[in-house]
Amino acid sequence: MPEKIIDIRGRKLGGDQPLICSPLVGRTRERILAETASVVEKEPDVIEWRIDYFEAIADTPAVLEVARAIRGAAGDAPIILTRRSVREGGEPIALDDEGVVRLYDAVCADHNVDFVDFEMSNDAEHVRRVVAAARKAATRVILSYHNFSYTPGLAVLVQRFLEAEQLGGDVAKVAVMPRDRADVLTLLAATLEADAKARIPLISMSMGPLGSITRMVGGVFGSALSFAVGAGSSAPGQMPIADLNTVYDVIRRARGG
Amino acid sequence: MPEKIIDIRGRKLGGDQPLICSPLVGRTRERILAETASVVEKEPDVIEWRIDYFEAIADTPAVLEVARAIRGAAGDAPIILTRRSVREGGEPIALDDEGVVRLYDAVCADHNVDFVDFEMSNDAEHVRRVVAAARKAATRVILSYHNFSYTPGLAVLVQRFLEAEQLGGDVAKVAVMPRDRADVLTLLAATLEADAKARIPLISMSMGPLGSITRMVGGVFGSALSFAVGAGSSAPGQMPIADLNTVYDVIRRARGG
Repeated sequence: MPEKIIDIRGRKLGGDQPLICSPLVGRTRERILAETASVVEKEPDVIEWRIDYFEAIADTPAVLEVARAIRGAAGDAPIILTRRSVREGGEPIALDDEGVVRLYDAVCADHNVDFVDFEMSNDAEHVRRVVAAARKAATRVILSYHNFSYTPGLAVLVQRFLEAEQLGGDVAKVAVMPRDRADVLTLLAATLEADAKARIPLISMSMGPLGSITRMVGGVFGSALSFAVGAGSSAPGQMPIADLNTVYDVIRRARGG
Repeated sequence: MPEKIIDIRGRKLGGDQPLICSPLVGRTRERILAETASVVEKEPDVIEWRIDYFEAIADTPAVLEVARAIRGAAGDAPIILTRRSVREGGEPIALDDEGVVRLYDAVCADHNVDFVDFEMSNDAEHVRRVVAAARKAATRVILSYHNFSYTPGLAVLVQRFLEAEQLGGDVAKVAVMPRDRADVLTLLAATLEADAKARIPLISMSMGPLGSITRMVGGVFGSALSFAVGAGSSAPGQMPIADLNTVYDVIRRARGG
């Protein structure tokens, strides 16, 4: 397996142990900061701020100010800023796609987040601009693909991971919904295959109750990060941080780590 | 999925929740009974007595007496009696194959164990005789296949499960050693496929540290039982009962059970 660790603030994305990331899903500055305080107590490795939940998302200075406040409260945890689109499972927002690209540009330039997550299904020119803005600011880009309806076949999933690398992503993320137990194994097999081919860290999960075990064992097959609930959930199948940590401990011991 | 629960002493093999089975691997009557007492405290669902570890295996009355003593000490836990052959990962014993078949016959007739485990790789006539003896005594037979060297392909593994059913087994068990992470997924995929085709409960695991996660999540893919350490381990990759119970609790909550 090629070496492909991203080391941010001492957290190793792509190392032996998958990182645990907790989302912030508050709608107001006050809620988000209360949530941050509550999440930080549970010591996730990484914090993701889902800005599509933030009611003032169209107010760039407000977004930058909240990002700065989260940064101040997050300790050493790297921060991912994510606008999830409605078509990939996010909230409706008061910004058009051009506005989102400009917001990402401003966020990167402000240096208070470590990663931005942008969907590959966005306009190609927008993907190019976000990657360029992030690179200029030394912010890492997670290029992502979500499917809340079903799990595409193995080859399609592998292609999604590799596409993220080809488009200039620093990390590739694939999250899909299983319709049966075979879909859960397909997601894990695709992660394993892509992990052998890609030169960047991968993040993957099969969503919902059926897919929830991939959040526990995905690390064994090459997923570098798993989302778990600190204060609020951002996708179906996420479990509490404490539960995920407990399972990681058991897996580590069982594998002799 | 067809209904195929075996209900023994209130334990449901093949139900929603995989059972946890702890092996007894003592060499003397004294050690085995001390081990039984220690294992019972940890409340496994099922206890397996590995008679290939028992130094008096060639002394049928001694085997029957120890089986009776284990039965008396095991509370409600069903008991599996297993002679694992050297070629499938067991200990050398002072009995030839004919002697083992006669011992199984005596054990079944004595009604102190609920299951016997017999390897499908045994002489076909011996398999037939063990199945007949067990059926006559209303003891369940687990027909098993172990490979400590590698993991055969998906189709071969599925065939092993189905062969156990064709040969008259009440339960099919497949335990194989992975050489890489793909082998771990192959074992889970084979279990899932066989579970859809077989009319009997299945038990499966990928062994060693690499395969240890299958002992945790195998139940999701159709494995009805997982081996965990009460006092001593009988195969590589087994974790302590408490750890496995902890992971089962997390999986149950995450899946909404």
